[in-house]
Order: sequence, then structure tokens, then C-alpha cells
Amino acid sequence: MDRKINIVIDTFGGDNGAKVCVKGAIQGIKENPNVHIFLTGKKEELNKLLSEYEYDKDRIEVVNATEEISPEEHPVEAVRKKKDSSLVVGLNLVKEGKADAFISAGSSGAILAGGQFIVGRAKGVKRTPLAPILPTSGKPSLLIDCGANVDAKPDVLNQFAEMGSIYMENIMGVKNPTVAIVNIGTEEAKGNALVKETYPILKANKHINFIGSIEAREIPSGKADVILTEAFVGNVILKMYEGMAKMILGEIKGAFLSNFKSKIGALMVKSSLKKVLKKFNASDKGGAPLLGLNGLVVKIHGNSKEMEVISAIKQCTKFVENDVCGKIIEGLKAEEEE
Amino acid sequence: MDRKINIVIDTFGGDNGAKVCVKGAIQGIKENPNVHIFLTGKKEELNKLLSEYEYDKDRIEVVNATEEISPEEHPVEAVRKKKDSSLVVGLNLVKEGKADAFISAGSSGAILAGGQFIVGRAKGVKRTPLAPILPTSGKPSLLIDCGANVDAKPDVLNQFAEMGSIYMENIMGVKNPTVAIVNIGTEEAKGNALVKETYPILKANKHINFIGSIEAREIPSGKADVILTEAFVGNVILKMYEGMAKMILGEIKGAFLSNFKSKIGALMVKSSLKKVLKKFNASDKGGAPLLGLNGLVVKIHGNSKEMEVISAIKQCTKFVENDVCGKIIEGLKAEEEE
Repeated sequence: MDRKINIVIDTFGGDNGAKVCVKGAIQGIKENPNVHIFLTGKKEELNKLLSEYEYDKDRIEVVNATEEISPEEHPVEAVRKKKDSSLVVGLNLVKEGKADAFISAGSSGAILAGGQFIVGRAKGVKRTPLAPILPTSGKPSLLIDCGANVDAKPDVLNQFAEMGSIYMENIMGVKNPTVAIVNIGTEEAKGNALVKETYPILKANKHINFIGSIEAREIPSGKADVILTEAFVGNVILKMYEGMAKMILGEIKGAFLSNFKSKIGALMVKSSLKKVLKKFNASDKGGAPLLGLNGLVVKIHGNSKEMEVISAIKQCTKFVENDVCGKIIEGLKAEEEE
Repeated sequence: MDRKINIVIDTFGGDNGAKVCVKGAIQGIKENPNVHIFLTGKKEELNKLLSEYEYDKDRIEVVNATEEISPEEHPVEAVRKKKDSSLVVGLNLVKEGKADAFISAGSSGAILAGGQFIVGRAKGVKRTPLAPILPTSGKPSLLIDCGANVDAKPDVLNQFAEMGSIYMENIMGVKNPTVAIVNIGTEEAKGNALVKETYPILKANKHINFIGSIEAREIPSGKADVILTEAFVGNVILKMYEGMAKMILGEIKGAFLSNFKSKIGALMVKSSLKKVLKKFNASDKGGAPLLGLNGLVVKIHGNSKEMEVISAIKQCTKFVENDVCGKIIEGLKAEEEE
């Protein structure tokens, strides 16, 4: 029999409240027979929400947590002080080995800080990157790093390239994933000091399939499986993705509603457009993994619905079944020894 | 009588050949009574193209240049070696004081290098930023810097903020333009080392209307008039703009063509959509100015048509009439003396 997979869902911090976490958990245990779920949050509320469903009571456990961490709080301080928050209680379950993975729609800063300080870095890992999946007009790409490691050094980026490759291979099923570094030109001599220093290290790394530089304009077309960059630039790319999509789609919606003829036309293109837009909805890809920890921490969008929770449960299951943590430790060790 | 304004148009390097430059020049002198134009490039070809029009022969002058600089060449080497290229011949006219401004659709790298090495920096200017106009769902923003100054220091960024403000006020007619620095959060304590160091300098600068940090997701909504960032990040933002717009519009086009019903619907929304897309066409805003030189150098898109050339001529005219060069020198001097 396969091993039991224990997953924590932090039920606080999402825009849609604890109910989408509960609904996702119920469906998650149905779809993944080895999964056991801990729901951290307000016991009374969670039990009330759970009472509306028929499910195997042995497979979903409520762990009471009385405090909440909001995005406005200083992440590191909040994680230190609020010992009884749903986030800290949940991450401690991973730290103590009671759980393999942790999912939260809460404060990004607190998730990054808590992952690093409570769960802790795996052996050999210098920094822990946050790596969201970007929808593209081709295959989805992993953007690594969008986390807290601004001004990271070349050796750190090199590790990120390896972790990202292992993730794409094991979770997204991409064989020999391509890695490209974000640059302002495609020639090897181009770039800022960090890129120029990192490029030859990546080129010499036998454990990754490095294909050189990628200009930001090529990112939306899905030119590489792993898009490597330092966290400041990674954040800018991720936010440009969101901002541009919102702006362009908003303008188009405005155009559709601008007169009677266009309103009728919009009704006729609606179903075809929906298909396209679905492609850009990453809700079936799970959340953004925080890699390199002793366990998996997944950040899902603040506005996640049960679909995102279910996908994240599946993502955690794959992560554990394929021993991605172990593979990262092995991979970095092999690189270190060369 | 107003002073004569002399503008060079480099006729090599654009995707649409010399003919759009000639057509733009013909229209440019009609619209701007004080403008005199130098066309640098192959004399025979240019004279042949000009012969198709009726125009005031005293106001358009062909200056022969036998060499061409392609985007594949190393910019600095090309500018040094190809003394008889349309780009170098044109920039020398500005250097010698025969022209006030220079417009080119050629190699960005060569324009940046030539601007700096041939035309030269104005007094007090540390670095010369390239500052394209970004279309947004609100007012257009100036993105400064997208040039060659990667890894710029805080004092350099502070100068860019001033130059960008002077440009927006004098060319785009924005009173007291707002300046925001690109960051990964809006709190003052957020950011990488460069942003953290630059932030208090901008805050203390009395010559600009600094409104704090801007996250990349807010850029497409036009939240600030001047978007300040180091050139590596600026390039990423600019290329994401292009790449995302191309990708999303491509996907939407695909959706429109996917079946008969959507094709009919597309015909009905077409005119409304065109109005929206026109907003994102910056062809009426001129090109990207390279600021802080002893003169104005304008980079227009490689695929520019005569409309862009005409807009750039107007932009150069405004620049000279409002003495933006002088204002930049004065502004930086005042800041230095404080």
C-alpha cells in the first residue's frame, strides 16, 4: 500500500473564507485515496462547515488555531509572535513531521517567512524560492524566483535552476525541461552584472538543460519550461502578467459594451473567448510552491476557490509521491560534489 | 520669427525602408513651419524618392552616407568604425551644432552608444536614459530607464527622475508630473538594495513630485506619470508590455476565428475593438527620447511608418522650442547646489 500523505490547509487568509478550504478538502480526499487533511483555523466554524458534508471522519482533522495573520502585518514579526495562528500552527505540523505539505491562501510574506523559519531549509539549500506557474500561449512555464530572495547571488540562482527543473520534471511531467535566464538580449555578453556572472555557471551545469537567455517579450509565448530570474525581476514579471491581462481584458470588455452592435457581437464570440481565457486560468495547476524546504509549502491565490484547493492537494500528493524533496537534496549534493 | 529647428532623420535601419522617412519628412515640414530636415542615407535612392513629391527644396537636405549599421553588429564597435554610416553621419550633424535633434529606427544599441559617444552628455548629466512612453488604460506614462545603464546607482536614478519629470511637463504637457519607483511592495521598507537606497533620496528631492513605490501590476493602469526604474528592470517591463499584448491579442484573434458564429460576432465587435487598440498604439506620441544629451536623440520603432516619423518630428520640435536640454541642465544644477 502507498504511504499516507498528510496535508495541512490553512483556512484563514483567503478572500473566499474557510468554506472553500473545507469544500476543497472534502473533494480532495475523495480524489486522492492516500491523503489525510489537517484543517487549521477556528474549530467551531470548521466543524460547522464540515457538518454539512458526508465524508470519512478519519481523513479530515480540525486543528484549532485562535489567531490570524493579515497581509498588513510585518511577516517575520507576525510569524514569531502569533504562535496560535492558523499559519504557524499549520507549519509546525510540517516541522514536527506530522504533515508533508502545507497549503495557504494567506499573507505571501508570512508564508515565505514561516516556511523558511518554521519548516526550515532542506540540507544543502542556500535559499528557498517561490516558483509560480505562468500560463503561456504554449506550455506553462515555471517562473523561479518570485520569493523573498532579492539580490540573490549566482550560486543561489544556479540552485534555483536545478530545483525548478526537478519540479517541472516531477510535478508537471516535462522531460528534460529547458531553463532560460531572463535577460535584456540573447547574446551571452548581454545583461547586468548578476546575469553575466550567472550565465557561465548555468552553462557549465550538467544537471540542467540550459538554453541561454530569454527576453521578457518571449516569456508569454512559453519559450522555456523554467524561467530563471532574481526575485525582484521575478516579481515584476509576475505582476506585469497580472496587470497587463487585467488591463487588456478590461479594455476589451469596455469595447464590447460600448454599443448595441458590439454587445450582440460579444454574445456571439463569448463561448470561443471563454475557452481561450480558461487557458490563462492556472487554477488546475495548483499554487506556487516554495521549494527547498523540509516539506512542501504551497501559496495559492488570495481569491482561490475550491478548485484551486483541490489542485493544490493533488500537487502536494504528486510532490510527496515523487519524493521531490529528496530529489532536490540529492540533486544539489551531486552538483556540490562536482 | 521663431528660430529654425534642424532635425536629422537616419533613413537606414527601419523595417519599412527609406520611403517612410521621406514621406514623413515631406509631411513634417508642412506641419511644422520652422523645421528643416536632413535625411542621411544613400543619396541616389533618397533623391529618387524625394522626386515624387512637390516640396520646398530648401527645407529638406540629403546628406550622403554610404555605410549601414545593422542590429547584429556590436554597437560600440560599429559606431567607432563606420564613420560613413547614416547613423554616425547624422549624429555628427548634431554634435557639430548643425542639427538640434536626430531620429532613427535603426539599431537600438548603436543609437544609445552613438548618442552618448558622438553627441555627448550635457553638463552635469551622469548617465543618459532611454525613456519610452507606455500606453495605459489611463494617461500615458514615461518609463525611465530602458537604456544601456544597467546596475545604475541611486544618484543616477535620482537624475533620471528629474529628467523624466521635465520631459513629461514640457513635451507631454503634464503639470507637476508624479514619479513612482518600481518596487515589489508599496511600503518604504520593501525592495532590493538599490530601491531601498534610492527611495529616501527621491523622497528628499524637492524638484520632483515623488509619490512612492509602484508595483508592476499597477503600471498598465497609468498610476504614475514617470515610472522610475533601473534599465534591466525597465527593459523587462517594456518587453513584457509588448509580449503580453501580442500574446493576449493573438489568442483572442484565434478565438474569433475558431468557428462560424464567432467569426460573425468578431465582425460586429471589430470597430469598437479597433478604437480600444488604437489607444495602445503609441505612434502619435513620437519615439523614445534618449535624454541628457547635448541635443535630442529619438529612437522610433523598427517597424515605424510615416505616422511615427511625423510624430517624432513634432516631438523634436517641441523639445527644442521648450528648451528641454537647457531645462535639464538647469534642473540638475539646482539639485546639485542644494
